[in-house]
Amino acid sequence: MRKSIATVSVSGTLPEKLEAIAAAGFDGVEIFENDLLACPLSPEEVRSRAADLGLGIDLYQPFRDFEAVPADVLAGNLRRAERKFRVMERLGADLLLVCSNVSPDAIGDDELAAEQLRLLAGRAAEHGVRIAYEALAWGRHVNEYLHAWRVVRMADHPNLGTCLDSFHILSRGSDPIGIEAIPGEKIFFLQLADAPLLAMDVLQWSRHYRCFPGQGNFDLAGLTASVLRAGYAGPLSLEVFNDVFRQASAERTALDGMRSLIALEQSLDGVRHPAVPAGFAFAELADTGTLGGLLTALGFARTGAHASKPVELWSQGEARLLLNSRAQESHDGPALVAIGLDSPDPGGAVKHAGSLLSPVLPRERAPEDAPLDAIAAPDGTEIFFCDTAWLADFGQGAPVEGSVTRIDHVALTQPLHYFDEAALFYRGVLGLRPQESLELPDPYGLLRSKAMSSPDGAVRMVVNIAQVGAGHHPWQHIALACDDVVATARRLRAEHPDLLLPIPDNYYDDLEARYEVDPELRHLGVLYDRDGRGGEFLHLYTVTAGRVFFELVQRIGGYQGYGAGNAPIRLAVQHAGA
Amino acid sequence: MRKSIATVSVSGTLPEKLEAIAAAGFDGVEIFENDLLACPLSPEEVRSRAADLGLGIDLYQPFRDFEAVPADVLAGNLRRAERKFRVMERLGADLLLVCSNVSPDAIGDDELAAEQLRLLAGRAAEHGVRIAYEALAWGRHVNEYLHAWRVVRMADHPNLGTCLDSFHILSRGSDPIGIEAIPGEKIFFLQLADAPLLAMDVLQWSRHYRCFPGQGNFDLAGLTASVLRAGYAGPLSLEVFNDVFRQASAERTALDGMRSLIALEQSLDGVRHPAVPAGFAFAELADTGTLGGLLTALGFARTGAHASKPVELWSQGEARLLLNSRAQESHDGPALVAIGLDSPDPGGAVKHAGSLLSPVLPRERAPEDAPLDAIAAPDGTEIFFCDTAWLADFGQGAPVEGSVTRIDHVALTQPLHYFDEAALFYRGVLGLRPQESLELPDPYGLLRSKAMSSPDGAVRMVVNIAQVGAGHHPWQHIALACDDVVATARRLRAEHPDLLLPIPDNYYDDLEARYEVDPELRHLGVLYDRDGRGGEFLHLYTVTAGRVFFELVQRIGGYQGYGAGNAPIRLAVQHAGA
Repeated sequence: MRKSIATVSVSGTLPEKLEAIAAAGFDGVEIFENDLLACPLSPEEVRSRAADLGLGIDLYQPFRDFEAVPADVLAGNLRRAERKFRVMERLGADLLLVCSNVSPDAIGDDELAAEQLRLLAGRAAEHGVRIAYEALAWGRHVNEYLHAWRVVRMADHPNLGTCLDSFHILSRGSDPIGIEAIPGEKIFFLQLADAPLLAMDVLQWSRHYRCFPGQGNFDLAGLTASVLRAGYAGPLSLEVFNDVFRQASAERTALDGMRSLIALEQSLDGVRHPAVPAGFAFAELADTGTLGGLLTALGFARTGAHASKPVELWSQGEARLLLNSRAQESHDGPALVAIGLDSPDPGGAVKHAGSLLSPVLPRERAPEDAPLDAIAAPDGTEIFFCDTAWLADFGQGAPVEGSVTRIDHVALTQPLHYFDEAALFYRGVLGLRPQESLELPDPYGLLRSKAMSSPDGAVRMVVNIAQVGAGHHPWQHIALACDDVVATARRLRAEHPDLLLPIPDNYYDDLEARYEVDPELRHLGVLYDRDGRGGEFLHLYTVTAGRVFFELVQRIGGYQGYGAGNAPIRLAVQHAGA
Repeated sequence: MRKSIATVSVSGTLPEKLEAIAAAGFDGVEIFENDLLACPLSPEEVRSRAADLGLGIDLYQPFRDFEAVPADVLAGNLRRAERKFRVMERLGADLLLVCSNVSPDAIGDDELAAEQLRLLAGRAAEHGVRIAYEALAWGRHVNEYLHAWRVVRMADHPNLGTCLDSFHILSRGSDPIGIEAIPGEKIFFLQLADAPLLAMDVLQWSRHYRCFPGQGNFDLAGLTASVLRAGYAGPLSLEVFNDVFRQASAERTALDGMRSLIALEQSLDGVRHPAVPAGFAFAELADTGTLGGLLTALGFARTGAHASKPVELWSQGEARLLLNSRAQESHDGPALVAIGLDSPDPGGAVKHAGSLLSPVLPRERAPEDAPLDAIAAPDGTEIFFCDTAWLADFGQGAPVEGSVTRIDHVALTQPLHYFDEAALFYRGVLGLRPQESLELPDPYGLLRSKAMSSPDGAVRMVVNIAQVGAGHHPWQHIALACDDVVATARRLRAEHPDLLLPIPDNYYDDLEARYEVDPELRHLGVLYDRDGRGGEFLHLYTVTAGRVFFELVQRIGGYQGYGAGNAPIRLAVQHAGA
């Protein structure tokens, strides 16, 4: 399907926006009026700039507060419209978005609205322009998409149709199945935006928090399916107002928008996700010698070394960590650089990721090495899709049994501008499902956190962004599933007490006030959480080494969370020690 | 009055918070429980740390979801409370904040709530603890302050009183005059927070957007007056949850909180504001030779030079600009460094600013110079309070008449963390009144803008913060009142066309669609705005020189705004040329 995007969705001046949008592979744009008004190029120049870039101008928008007004206001509105039609002719745009009237002076009379829109459509026809009438969620009288359609049908003019905007429909909780009552040829345009569920004024929600399909909580695929079932054959067009996108790179935002539309199309086409990983194959850390001691203390052993690279394999149970002394550490020391995922079809997984515009990484490898297919996550972390062949490169070490059984989850701290992009990446490329989204206090700001999991829980990722001031530490961590955190903590407390993150006694005073827990937890520095269904969570943290620390976690009784309530305690202790 | 602040209001670890709070001169603190839980110091150590800093612990908070619960839940809640009483004994805190129950399991039965709170108060008494019961704005059943008082009166226990929180009262639109129905000795605590008026979920509003008294839209003085009239004699205590404060310097935030309480006290004491300035005396620019040509083109002339410093006076009508070749330019060139205000009482103005903790600046001056009293604004701009004596230092130049008559307003771009502080500064220290607050699109982000004005409009300041990505230009500007912008623009267009910021034709296509304006505006690059009451605004911008540009403005028919709708056009053109 044809793919478009409104210029307001990306940052920059209008020429910069057009270039970024074209580079991302879009077919067309909606010209947002303010972008044109602020542009020194004439409409003719914008038209030819767009044409040179291979972009059609699919829509000009918005035209506000037109319909259902007293006669004297109508005259001025028609005069205003005539001027806009002339601009559109110069621009080569033939579709104008008219938003439902929000003025307190608008009259609640559908017949009047229809009559005036019919008049407008007639004038538009003289300029070869068609009108797409849209119900804003905060329209004065018309704020439901079916109401807008009723008015359009009453007006009954070939140059008048409706524009559907997923945000305006879904933010009000309207059921999009009613779209199937609209003849496809009367749906003149479809604007797509997702959004997180937020309890706030819908206007503010719309103006600041929209995001691309798949990044929020709306069912865009369901809505789009209804639009297609109605017979719509126009473009899928993104229209996003987002405070973060406004500040981000236009190229990156446009590419992410394109990714979201490809993913949406794939889900509509019933493309099955080929790449849901079955577990973590490994996590790879840049390390020049710091981590061996910590891993040994945790019960890991060095079970292999790469045949041709300075990379060691450390194992315990099914948990495998690669220590790479050639990869780049952070300026503070060790850093997480790559994640290996057990994939039933590594080649298919990379191909799927490529179809979603993820950068596929070149592999420099010795001729005898196992092929490893890798892509880059939004923050640059390398993601490898593995079968078991890669292990052969590290020799045949004896298995190491201990209390750690496997990697439970990996937590990555993202730059602010990549948070929504990362959510879409882990969902679209890896097939993870969003779990909880949280905001946690940090001593110097807030940590926003989004957890995602494969359907069976075998792969869990936590994506964080730290909105903090001075003293920002973008920690990453690897959480290791452990079948007896208390016993392991006892051993660590006895043998390596300095490796455990010290948990304040005050935490335990509170914990013991809330739950009847074993007093030994306090002595050991083990943290505890309980969910509403009786599930329990025992966990402990190591001190940090560079950007990295480890967590041992034990899930009891179906606990699905991450002990998020304890994270502020951890952050405060880490900051105090940093 | 005693002044306190909740530890949650400032950033850092608990010891850092206590130090910053003590340094700002507070008498006491509310210990926010999460700050204690995350702290490695024992409650005894926190107590002695606070005592060493001269801080009392006035409140421990919050204790949640206690009252109006089934019997089995009550037993657990009492057990939880006993543990907290013990922590409070160790901490030396004797007042516990109990928030109204928000649990869906809470029972809507005031008698049950009162009975259980009476029981809690009895247990508290055994530990020397008193209970302050507060209605959260989102409490399940009790969410109005008078409802909380009704329950407290029913419970009738000497160790049970109510806590009043201005946010919870004013965010719901409740009238605080009802506070005067509560006997003062039953008001155990008063928490103060202001907030901007936002249309959003009250919980999110409370958790992220509270600010200090005088920084938002609530009438804190009116509420506090009612509390004092009721006979309350406890502390004024700030409790603010604010995403920006969380990331800012604790020292600076605490000082600003103290400033807000001093200003509140002054308004309660009927202290008259001594310093409302009568106009702009001058604006001073760091300049090493760039600006003279631009000012000459605008009709200014060099009318004097400082007797002992490398500072020139440029004048036109009552508009006076100082070009200081010794002051520090920005790395881009000229910068605004100081503002002189005509003050009826310069000494009193500085004394008043000092009482509000503004830094009073030392004056290095030659013995023969006129004394100039100055303070530093939050962004470092120097503010001088002047009578007319300072002019003598620059010699007696002939008056220069032209179309520019005076300085209309000055716009300063602030660092993000200083926005609320700046609002309080200009309101409290200079006596300006807040006008419109706006969010404007910038090609690379958003510009938040707050305009303030003296009651007669003689002094107007616009405080901006730019939330933008790459290419951030923290422009400042001086707007000059002009009695004929069109004529001046004609002259500039003819003589100095390169000094006018070029305004896109597309802007005029839209302007002419909306209003019947003189087509010459387009030719001249003059912008236009109209308000809802027939007031009109004509203005033009010069190109930027370093961080600075000039605007010529003409207000017609009582127009009070700043042409904010045209600012996005300006920003886009400035970015494109930067």
